Amino acid sequence: MSSSLQLDRLISALQIMPGIGKRSATRIAYQLLERKRAEAINLAKVMQDAMTGIVYCKQCQNYSDYELCDICQNVKRQEKRHLCVVETPSDMQAIEQGGNYTGLYFILHGHLSPIDGIGPQELRLEILENLFKQDKFDEIILATNPTVEGEATASYIAAIAKKYNLIVSRLATGIPQGSDLDCVDEHTIATSMAYRRIIK
Amino acid sequence: MSSSLQLDRLISALQIMPGIGKRSATRIAYQLLERKRAEAINLAKVMQDAMTGIVYCKQCQNYSDYELCDICQNVKRQEKRHLCVVETPSDMQAIEQGGNYTGLYFILHGHLSPIDGIGPQELRLEILENLFKQDKFDEIILATNPTVEGEATASYIAAIAKKYNLIVSRLATGIPQGSDLDCVDEHTIATSMAYRRIIK
Repeated sequence: MSSSLQLDRLISALQIMPGIGKRSATRIAYQLLERKRAEAINLAKVMQDAMTGIVYCKQCQNYSDYELCDICQNVKRQEKRHLCVVETPSDMQAIEQGGNYTGLYFILHGHLSPIDGIGPQELRLEILENLFKQDKFDEIILATNPTVEGEATASYIAAIAKKYNLIVSRLATGIPQGSDLDCVDEHTIATSMAYRRIIK
Repeated sequence: MSSSLQLDRLISALQIMPGIGKRSATRIAYQLLERKRAEAINLAKVMQDAMTGIVYCKQCQNYSDYELCDICQNVKRQEKRHLCVVETPSDMQAIEQGGNYTGLYFILHGHLSPIDGIGPQELRLEILENLFKQDKFDEIILATNPTVEGEATASYIAAIAKKYNLIVSRLATGIPQGSDLDCVDEHTIATSMAYRRIIK
């Protein structure tokens, strides 16, 4: 309980953000009030706009300001006829930052996890299968995480893609660039040995 | 650059909060979009209301929803005729949580720091002196922090209060309750020795 009911409400509302507990929320509320009222009013407006205005791109399912996002509208990317399937928008960002992929994306917003009630329906795999049917792609790159759930999700999608005679690939797993063999976990070492490349 | 301009704006606006960098802002934005749109719309509203609605109490200068805050309006607290001067609203909270102070407060919103351009004017010491003049208080408790700036601020205010024949006190400094002598810094040990209490 502080001196102001509105302040208490703000401190409590701030705690919906991941990683923000009561202590951080209090510090943030006081700092905004003390020094950044105009910026906070702007943040409130931007947040309101984003939460009501951002939709899912009807093709790739990424967050977008329009029905079809910039990437899906890009003709050069369409011409590549590559579709990269990722778990989250941040994963897509990471691949964009890699800088050498120039095709389209599909964002699952999760991975198969029957124990959490996440099945094919929740991952919008029907929409994905519809894309497979439309003869828009030659290769489907499965870029789900190399975890148990990510691998299961990839296998499931691979089986669907095979029905449409699509080339299906998976991101290479192995030792990260610039790492030290000493510090890499044994499972990664084993994977890198199993999938070793022949140098010609 | 993400897939949505509104999302980019939200990620950038979130970074006005202390302790929130680009990475945290991105994580927060995605989580709010994915799972907490309604809560985030509520947060935006509460933030907007707080930033435009919260004023400074005209007496104690704390944040308040009204011209005069609940504590200043409390007759029982007025009757104590004690005024506790603190640097920040959080310091006031800390004293309230101590639970044994029942008088009124004055919040400076900082401490004297000529190097940062914070002089008596910025701390609203005129308003404080006006309170001293009104014969509302018998004792002024200076609860600024036991730091160089806090001590200087306390001395400055003490000199003003003395002009009005008020009793001036300072929070006791010494070893914290429940601590281990071993772990207390030498300056605190020296202070606790200098201000030792005679047991009768």
